[in-house]
Parts: sequence; C-alpha cells; structure tokens
Amino acid sequence: MRNYKDPDYRPEEYERLRETQLTARDIFHGQILHLREDTVRLPNGGTAPRELIVHVGAVCVVPVTEDGQVYVERQFRYPLGQVITEIPAGKLDSDTEDILQAAKRELREETGLTADRWTELGLYYPAAAYSDEVITMYLAQGLHKGNRELDADEFLDVQLLPMEQLIRDILEGKVPDGKTQAAVLKAARLLGM
Amino acid sequence: MRNYKDPDYRPEEYERLRETQLTARDIFHGQILHLREDTVRLPNGGTAPRELIVHVGAVCVVPVTEDGQVYVERQFRYPLGQVITEIPAGKLDSDTEDILQAAKRELREETGLTADRWTELGLYYPAAAYSDEVITMYLAQGLHKGNRELDADEFLDVQLLPMEQLIRDILEGKVPDGKTQAAVLKAARLLGM
Repeated sequence: MRNYKDPDYRPEEYERLRETQLTARDIFHGQILHLREDTVRLPNGGTAPRELIVHVGAVCVVPVTEDGQVYVERQFRYPLGQVITEIPAGKLDSDTEDILQAAKRELREETGLTADRWTELGLYYPAAAYSDEVITMYLAQGLHKGNRELDADEFLDVQLLPMEQLIRDILEGKVPDGKTQAAVLKAARLLGM
Repeated sequence: MRNYKDPDYRPEEYERLRETQLTARDIFHGQILHLREDTVRLPNGGTAPRELIVHVGAVCVVPVTEDGQVYVERQFRYPLGQVITEIPAGKLDSDTEDILQAAKRELREETGLTADRWTELGLYYPAAAYSDEVITMYLAQGLHKGNRELDADEFLDVQLLPMEQLIRDILEGKVPDGKTQAAVLKAARLLGM
C-alpha cells in the first residue's frame, strides 16, 4: 500500500499497543485479491499470526447537483447476492495514480459526470482488522453530464435521488453499503442538510 | 454466511443485473480469513471470476452515556500500521449466534459495559465488492460499568469522549474507521445531535 498519513497520530500510544512484523508470506495473488499471512510480535512479547488483504486503495465520490440531488448506482454485489445502492467508487489503477485523478476517472467512467468542485471528505478504512484498503472520499459539485464508459463486464444503473431521501433511506437501514453511509452522512453534515 | 434480508429489495432489477454462481472453490481457510474463488454467469451471458472473503458476520456498538458521552477504543490495526479510534465491535462466534447477544457479549468483553436499552441501527457491508461480511450496528444506552475480559492477545485502550467531539473528529477526518463513521453519524442523527 502507499503511505497514507495517520490522521490522528499519538506517538505515546505506540509503545503500549504496536505489533511489529516478524515474517510475511504471500498466500494468494488473484485477479482482485492479494492475501498475505504475517507473524507479528505482540506488545507483551508474544507472537501471533495476522492474515490480511493487501489492496491498492480506492476512491468514492458523493456527486451532488446544485438542487441537492445525488447520483447513486444500483449494482449487483455477488458476495452478498443483492443489488445495493452505492455512490460511485472504484480502485486506484496503480500505487502511483494520483488519488483525485482516480476519483475523477471513476466518476466519469461509471456515470459520465465531470465536476467543477472537489472537496476531500477524509479517509475510510473498510476493514482495518484484516485489510490495508484505504478509500479516499470526495464530495463533487458543479456537475456536468457526459457519456459513461463501463467495462464490458460491468453492469449498473445510475439513478438521481434527492439528498434528503438518500439520508432518510440510510437512517431507515435501506442502504447497507458502508462507504455510502459514511460519505453521504458526512457530506450532509458539511452541506448543512 | 447467514441469510440477511435485503433491506431494499426491488425484484425487477435482478433480471438485468444478477450474476449467478457457476463454480465455487476454496482457496484458503486460515484462522481469520476464508477465501473463495467462484465463477459466475454475467447478465450478458458471459462468465467472470469472482474472488471473495467468506465471513461469519460481525456487530458494532455505539455506547452512549446519559450525559452524551461515547465509549471508544484505541487499537493498533496491523494492516494499516496505525492506532485508530473505533467503537466496540467483534465477530459473531458462529453462524447461529444470536446477533444482539453477540453485541452484548462484545461490548462487555471489550469495555466491561452492559446496557439497558439496545436500538438496532441497520446493516453495514464493509466491502461488498469482495466480502460477504455483514456488520449489524447498535446503539446502546442505559450503560452500567463492569469488568472487561480481553483475550490474552488483545490490547486496546477504552476512552470516553463527548459525542460532539467524536462527531467533530469524524468530520475533520481523524476517525478513518468506516463502521465508526457510519454508526456514530447515524446514531447522532437519531439522537438529534
């Protein structure tokens, strides 16, 4: 993974809580997932195994129109067997891709949208216990429509929803996707909605 | 995984978007992670591989005191190499463990707390693209202190923070943990904070 800065670094905690790497072994290197099994030195001197997903990183975008509507996607997620509501998102192309450029690329490819104003909403760790994935969240405003460019094996519907309805759906439990809940509720607070 | 109900089922979408399982193969069955590689039939008739983490499910809890403070944990997360702020959370013991009982167990083990009032905050999918993990979120109120029971290799600090400060920390990007952002912002809306 690239080196994301700890957004709340408190050095005094590390002596008491840190685990240090002793060994690292690749278990599986698939088309999507890269799995590693490490051993670590625990704070009490013991050792323990740590299995983890190694991930290149990702972005997600809350695209909000001037009249307070949000573009969302309905997409079948095979692991869950459900079609769920998600904001536009995707993996970085590489360890070195500029993160904001990746957000612009994913938004354009999946929805056809471009945006005049981009606001970073902070980082999002989906599964800190077993994955090093970091998603950088953005708010995109000043939207312009264009043509989307889906991959040949990508199938998703783009829909436009009033922000108020999306917030209500989240509060009622209808939007289980984690990054969508976090990024939308965060954007809503920042926008005073 | 157990059968979690789709919280926003729209049957008309499935014909257009569903992927159906053709094959399934276990890749790795570790102490924590279980990885599977499937092939699926795509909506356009093509086939594609799908790598996924198979997960037993989990719970997380926002424990709020009568005077509006929240119990959080500071824990080193090896995949990220950082100590991060998280609400109490943990895996289900088994496919059949009652989910609310698991939330009560995790809260008690990690913080020593018990609670008089439990409110479900809905489901949270941490990584729907490559994991079937479902986290059920709860708000716990009417808290009582007791003794915590950490596992021998579990190291974490429990801290009490005003809810307003935790919300501010989330908005400022200091709390990258995904479930904590979503569950706390959701609880805050429901509590009118």
